[in-house]
Amino acid sequence: MEKVLYGNPEIVELNEKELELALNEIIQGIEKIDLDAAKGMQARLDGKIKPVRSLGVLEDIAVQLAGVQRTANPEIKGKALLLMAGDHHVVEEGVSAAPQEVTAQLYYSYLSGGGGINVLTNHAGAKLICTNIGIACPLNPPELMANHIKSGADNIAKGPAMTREEALKALLTGAKRASETIESGVNILATGEVGIGNTTPSAALISVITGCSVEEATGSGTGLKNDALIRKHEIIKKAIKINNPDPNDAIDILAKVGGLEIAAIVGAILGAAKQGVPTILDGIISSAAALVAAKLNPLVIDYLITSHSSEEKGELVALKHMGLEPRLFMNMRLGEGTGAALMFPMVEAALKVADEMATFNTAGVTTGDF
Amino acid sequence: MEKVLYGNPEIVELNEKELELALNEIIQGIEKIDLDAAKGMQARLDGKIKPVRSLGVLEDIAVQLAGVQRTANPEIKGKALLLMAGDHHVVEEGVSAAPQEVTAQLYYSYLSGGGGINVLTNHAGAKLICTNIGIACPLNPPELMANHIKSGADNIAKGPAMTREEALKALLTGAKRASETIESGVNILATGEVGIGNTTPSAALISVITGCSVEEATGSGTGLKNDALIRKHEIIKKAIKINNPDPNDAIDILAKVGGLEIAAIVGAILGAAKQGVPTILDGIISSAAALVAAKLNPLVIDYLITSHSSEEKGELVALKHMGLEPRLFMNMRLGEGTGAALMFPMVEAALKVADEMATFNTAGVTTGDF
Repeated sequence: MEKVLYGNPEIVELNEKELELALNEIIQGIEKIDLDAAKGMQARLDGKIKPVRSLGVLEDIAVQLAGVQRTANPEIKGKALLLMAGDHHVVEEGVSAAPQEVTAQLYYSYLSGGGGINVLTNHAGAKLICTNIGIACPLNPPELMANHIKSGADNIAKGPAMTREEALKALLTGAKRASETIESGVNILATGEVGIGNTTPSAALISVITGCSVEEATGSGTGLKNDALIRKHEIIKKAIKINNPDPNDAIDILAKVGGLEIAAIVGAILGAAKQGVPTILDGIISSAAALVAAKLNPLVIDYLITSHSSEEKGELVALKHMGLEPRLFMNMRLGEGTGAALMFPMVEAALKVADEMATFNTAGVTTGDF
Repeated sequence: MEKVLYGNPEIVELNEKELELALNEIIQGIEKIDLDAAKGMQARLDGKIKPVRSLGVLEDIAVQLAGVQRTANPEIKGKALLLMAGDHHVVEEGVSAAPQEVTAQLYYSYLSGGGGINVLTNHAGAKLICTNIGIACPLNPPELMANHIKSGADNIAKGPAMTREEALKALLTGAKRASETIESGVNILATGEVGIGNTTPSAALISVITGCSVEEATGSGTGLKNDALIRKHEIIKKAIKINNPDPNDAIDILAKVGGLEIAAIVGAILGAAKQGVPTILDGIISSAAALVAAKLNPLVIDYLITSHSSEEKGELVALKHMGLEPRLFMNMRLGEGTGAALMFPMVEAALKVADEMATFNTAGVTTGDF
C-alpha cells in the first residue's frame, strides 16, 4: 500500500528500458507547428483596422497559437498552471537564504489557497494544479505523496541529483500531470514551481546546456548577499565538475545537476506539446527546464510562450539560447509561476484581437502602406 | 445652438483670464501622495508569505495606489480609458504614412465597437470614453462635436498648433471628461488617443521639455520609411525653431508644438490627480502629455502608472525624464491606449496580492532574511 501512495504506479513500476521508451514516444510525438494555420492567422490580423503588425507581440502570440492548434481560428478552452514541488539537498552548502522546511510550508499554503500563485491564477481564471514530485519530508495526508519520486534531489556538490531512472520517472510524472490536465478541458498551460535551492541546479543546467559561465547563469535566489553569491558560484562550478554530465545527453545533464520538479516541468512541457498545447514559461527554473526539453526535441520551442524577465539573470541566457525573449518586466523573483500567471490575460487579449476587431472591409477605414 | 454643440459651454465661453484661473485651481489642487498610507501598504505586503519585495512592480503599484488613495487598503472601484481624438495639419508636410481621413474613420470605429482599443478595454473590464477634441472634419451626429475645440491643430511647421486660449480650453475639456468619469464611479484611468500625425508634435514636446535631440525623440509613427523619417526630423526641428516656445512655460510649449488631444490628455492627467485618481500612461503621446503635466506640477508624477514600451522611442526619453520605466515589452505601435489597457490586469493583480495572500502569521511559514 505504501508503495502505491509513493509515486504513480504506472510510472514508478516501469524499468529503465520502459522509461526510455515512454520518453521517446513523447519526444517523437511532437509535431512541427502548422505554418499554414499560422499564416492564416496573420492574414486575419492584417485585415484588421490597424497598421500592419502594429499589435506586435499580441500578433505573434495569436499567430503562434494558430500554428500550435493547427487552425487559423484558435481558441482558449481552459487554462491551468502546473506547479511542481521538489527539494534540493544542495542547500546544505548554504546556497539559499531560506531554510529547506519552507518548501513544504509553502506547498501546504498553495493547497489552502493563500500563496501568491493562488491569487494570480485566480485572477487569471486559471486552475492551479500542484504536484509534490520531490519534497524532502513526507506530507500529510498520504495522498499528497501520490506523485512523489524521491525525498529531494541529492546534494549536487557531492554527486548526482538523482539517478537517470529517477529523472525519467519525474519527467514522465510531469508529462502525465499535463495530460490529465489537458484531458480535463485545458488547452493552455503555464509552469510554476517551489523548491528552496532550485535556482542553483537551474543555473547549473543553463551553464552546461548554453555554455555560458556560471556567473552569467546565477542570481541571488531568495536573497543571497555578496559573499554568499560567490559561494553559490563555487558550489555550482563544483557540481558541474564533479558530476561531469554528458553535454550531448539531456537526461544525463538533468539527472546529474537538475532536480525533481525541474524534470517534472520538462515532462509537462514535452507532454503538452505532444498534445498540441502551448506552455507559458515562468522564470529561471522553467526556462532551464525548457532548455532541457528543447535539447530533447527543438520543435518544442515553438510551443513555448515567454512571460516575465525575472530578477534571476540566467533566465535571459536560457531564453536567448532558444531565440526567445521575455515580455513583462516586473522585477519579480518569487517563483511559483507568478510571472507566467500574469501572461494569461495577454494571451487571451491576443486571440480577442483576432476574433473581435473590425476589418478594413467592414469598417470603411482607408487602407494603405501603414 | 451651433455654438453650444461645438465645445462645452462651461469651458469655451471662458475668457483667457478665467481659463488660466481654472487651470491654476487644478494644478494647485494636486496633493503630494500620502507616504504613511504607502508605508502601511508596504508593511502589509512584507507580512505576506514571500521573500521581502519579491513581487517587485506589483508591490510598487500596490504601494503607489495606497499613497494615491490615501489609505493602506486601496480599492479599484471602476476602470475607464479616456480616448482623446484630434487632427494635426502638419500631415501636409508628409510626416505620416496614413492619410488624415483615417482619424475620423477610426473614431467612428471606436463608437461602433470594432477598434483595437474596444477589444482591449472590454477584455480589461474597463469603460472606453471617447472625446472628439479636435478632429479636422465635422462628425455626425452633431453630439459628437460637444467637446470639440478646433478642427485640427494647425501646421506646426508654419506656426503654432493653436492659440494659448485653445490649448487651455482643450486641457480643461480633458480635465472635465476625467471628472465626469470619476463621478460615474471610476477610480483608475488610462489614457489613449487617435490622431494621424500625432507622433510628430509628441516628439517636438519631448525634445523641447527634456532637451533631447529631435532624432532621439522621433520614431516612424504609423510606418514611415527611411527618407520620410529624415524628413520628419527636419519638420520637427523647423516647428521648434519657427515657434520658439518658452521653455519655462508648459502651456506655451503645448500650444505652439502640441496638439488638441495631447492637451486634453494633459488635462485628464491633472484633473484625475487632483481627485486622487491615478492614470495609466500608454505610449509616446500620453508620455509627452505627462511631461507637460509634470512641468505644470511635478507632484503629478506619483499619480502615473506606466504600461508598455511602445515602438516610438521618444516614449522612453519622456518616461526617463520623469524617473519612470515601462513594464510591458510588446513591440506595439497602434496607439489608441492599447498598451495602457493591457496594464489594468496588472494593477488589479497588485491589489489582490495585498488583499488575498496569506501572511507568515497565519500560514505557519518560517520567516527570515529572505
